[in-house]
Amino acid sequence: MSNIYAEIITIGNEVLAGYTVNTNATFISSRLREAGIAVKWVTTIADEPDAIKQAWQTAEERARLIITTGGLGPTPDDMTKNCIADFFNAPLEENARAAEDLKRFFALRKRPMTDINKGQILTPRGARVISNPVGTAPGLVMSRNDRVFAFFPGVPAEMKAMFTDGLMPMLTEFFDRPVIHTHLLRTTGIAESRLYEAVSDVVKQHSDFPLSFLPRQTGVDLRFTLIGDEPQTLKRWHAFIAVIRKSLHKYIFTEEERELHDVLLEMLRNRKMTLSVAESFTGGLIQDQITDIPGASDVFLGGVVAYSNDAKKALLAVSDHTLRETGAVSAATALEMARGVQERFQSDCSIATTGIAGPGGATPNKPVGLCYIAACLKDHESVREFRFGLNNRRLNKLRGAISGLEMLRRLLNGHDV
Amino acid sequence: MSNIYAEIITIGNEVLAGYTVNTNATFISSRLREAGIAVKWVTTIADEPDAIKQAWQTAEERARLIITTGGLGPTPDDMTKNCIADFFNAPLEENARAAEDLKRFFALRKRPMTDINKGQILTPRGARVISNPVGTAPGLVMSRNDRVFAFFPGVPAEMKAMFTDGLMPMLTEFFDRPVIHTHLLRTTGIAESRLYEAVSDVVKQHSDFPLSFLPRQTGVDLRFTLIGDEPQTLKRWHAFIAVIRKSLHKYIFTEEERELHDVLLEMLRNRKMTLSVAESFTGGLIQDQITDIPGASDVFLGGVVAYSNDAKKALLAVSDHTLRETGAVSAATALEMARGVQERFQSDCSIATTGIAGPGGATPNKPVGLCYIAACLKDHESVREFRFGLNNRRLNKLRGAISGLEMLRRLLNGHDV
Repeated sequence: MSNIYAEIITIGNEVLAGYTVNTNATFISSRLREAGIAVKWVTTIADEPDAIKQAWQTAEERARLIITTGGLGPTPDDMTKNCIADFFNAPLEENARAAEDLKRFFALRKRPMTDINKGQILTPRGARVISNPVGTAPGLVMSRNDRVFAFFPGVPAEMKAMFTDGLMPMLTEFFDRPVIHTHLLRTTGIAESRLYEAVSDVVKQHSDFPLSFLPRQTGVDLRFTLIGDEPQTLKRWHAFIAVIRKSLHKYIFTEEERELHDVLLEMLRNRKMTLSVAESFTGGLIQDQITDIPGASDVFLGGVVAYSNDAKKALLAVSDHTLRETGAVSAATALEMARGVQERFQSDCSIATTGIAGPGGATPNKPVGLCYIAACLKDHESVREFRFGLNNRRLNKLRGAISGLEMLRRLLNGHDV
Repeated sequence: MSNIYAEIITIGNEVLAGYTVNTNATFISSRLREAGIAVKWVTTIADEPDAIKQAWQTAEERARLIITTGGLGPTPDDMTKNCIADFFNAPLEENARAAEDLKRFFALRKRPMTDINKGQILTPRGARVISNPVGTAPGLVMSRNDRVFAFFPGVPAEMKAMFTDGLMPMLTEFFDRPVIHTHLLRTTGIAESRLYEAVSDVVKQHSDFPLSFLPRQTGVDLRFTLIGDEPQTLKRWHAFIAVIRKSLHKYIFTEEERELHDVLLEMLRNRKMTLSVAESFTGGLIQDQITDIPGASDVFLGGVVAYSNDAKKALLAVSDHTLRETGAVSAATALEMARGVQERFQSDCSIATTGIAGPGGATPNKPVGLCYIAACLKDHESVREFRFGLNNRRLNKLRGAISGLEMLRRLLNGHDV
């Protein structure tokens, strides 16, 4: 990408031990990419002064921007600040801004300041302090020659707030940024190898344009990149994307950094339609995803998680006859659940799932991963059988949720489902 | 920890760009830790041959076990295998086992093999092949002097299956393992600094025992470590843990690597009690969490997500009077929701949530993050007001979910809620 390379250094025994997922690095990489700065290395090391200083030294040799997270909390196992003092030969001193922020933090929350918090007003000489709106440990920025070092505590909400509001505006002081174009085609319902086959000829004809196929749990992303702003190249690049878009049209649900539930919710909002959901196989996951979107209540009226036959009958009006004849895991039950929840909530459309999420519950005819999903509009409905075939309950639920959302999306678009 | 240090190398532009979270490293670290092998470095690098070989060389100097994920898929942007051939001077050859596995994979799924899959039967000379039960790219193991290199594709489900069933049994051939004792106290409902203050004296008296305070989104973990097996030390260590356990008793919900919904479900199963859930604030998240646990249907009958007042009235029998007088976001509504869902599902206990998840929806008296949660048994009930005060919808939902689960847990345990 650009010539400004960044390195992220994560300090944390809890990450190395596998207790914590390094979502901080993901966040930082993503924000820097958008700002035209390429992260080339992410290095995770132990909470040990030697390892920390060694990592900074290596990073200083190869990266212009070095972002460190972790080890800035109030407890004694947090040793980043002392390492900074050593590494930059910058003794710790009381910092007026840090002291003020800390006082305000405790005053606002009407909580007394503990003794260990008091150590948090010390910062290395020469450090610029970034206020922490969420917690007590401030962010710190040091620079040396043309290298910039930023340090944040490891708590994601704290780091994110300081990174966005504190560091990002500061970066323009330090770096020029190149022009980078990126484009995303996000697909679901087709395997990576089939996807590649469908477009491999045109991809080979455009091998000068970087294109990545990135499998996710719920589909495959196609990511296009172009550095520079030369008009002819840009035009060819857009034409390349257009050809691929056309070939994969049916499978592409968005060209933005968004999830399917978000896209679907917006489609429904634009059409002024309301939604309800009846879940068994997915156990509440579809509703949880939908309600993650701000303003979901404009579209989503609610739903039912019906884990027992009694609940399917009493709340969703699934008939005794259907449950007896075809069982709870059947196309007929899925359809009756969808119709039932739509009637109950008086919504314009609905999704319903029923199946065997596993690992238990399989029968000779109904294996783990078997799932029936129905999607209903007022005048159209569809029901499909899926065989996710995975012995992973969470993954089965995730595939069920995206399949249900995708069925409704295609029904709304008039594609065959 | 031990003297066998491992390094994880993640190859992937998608991780560096922040498109993908590196959960593979978390999984591997965690499994190796349990096997007595300490991961000391996790390094993420670009899909570039030079960067890949450079990282392997650094790792070979400092680590005994080097695990690489990514870049083994079928598409041309996957270049790990060619790098292995170079780095080990081991030309690619057709591998009989890989060929057999691939044939079986497509036969089982009744899908035709695509041309790009055919390249997957080539492996570097001398590599041991680990069969991939989930996908088409095999895992590979190479060794040189006393160093062991393992290579896996980056798709988590594929890597995990091969790591567990293929690599782990192989490791005993290569390494002796030291004795490591670890212990976990997992808390919720108390801030890290208050937690530390409550036990700081005893922690200081036992400074020879490593103890980490690890904040998570939903609480704080205390992790104790001890290397070795000396009986007196082991006894002192257990006594140390016992003292801390006693001080923090009320906040500790498990001493295992488990989540609160899992712990609660087991408590209910042991008491042969059934559960139903009514969600507004948490929008299905509690039910989604509960149904992630295999066998949840023994305990969990189902529930309702009631996002509109109509749904609260029709499905949960919340009274018009209450909605008019106190509003949907109130203690009275939360209690009526909990009672209503319990009645509707005829369950032995219930949880209900109502509030303003944000970022919209606040009123002068009812800020974003305000939430009322009720937990009911047949003969006890409790309701509490929470002010999560976060402008992050997902985080508010997560805090709401854990608070609801924790209220029911404490109610069952007879603690004050």
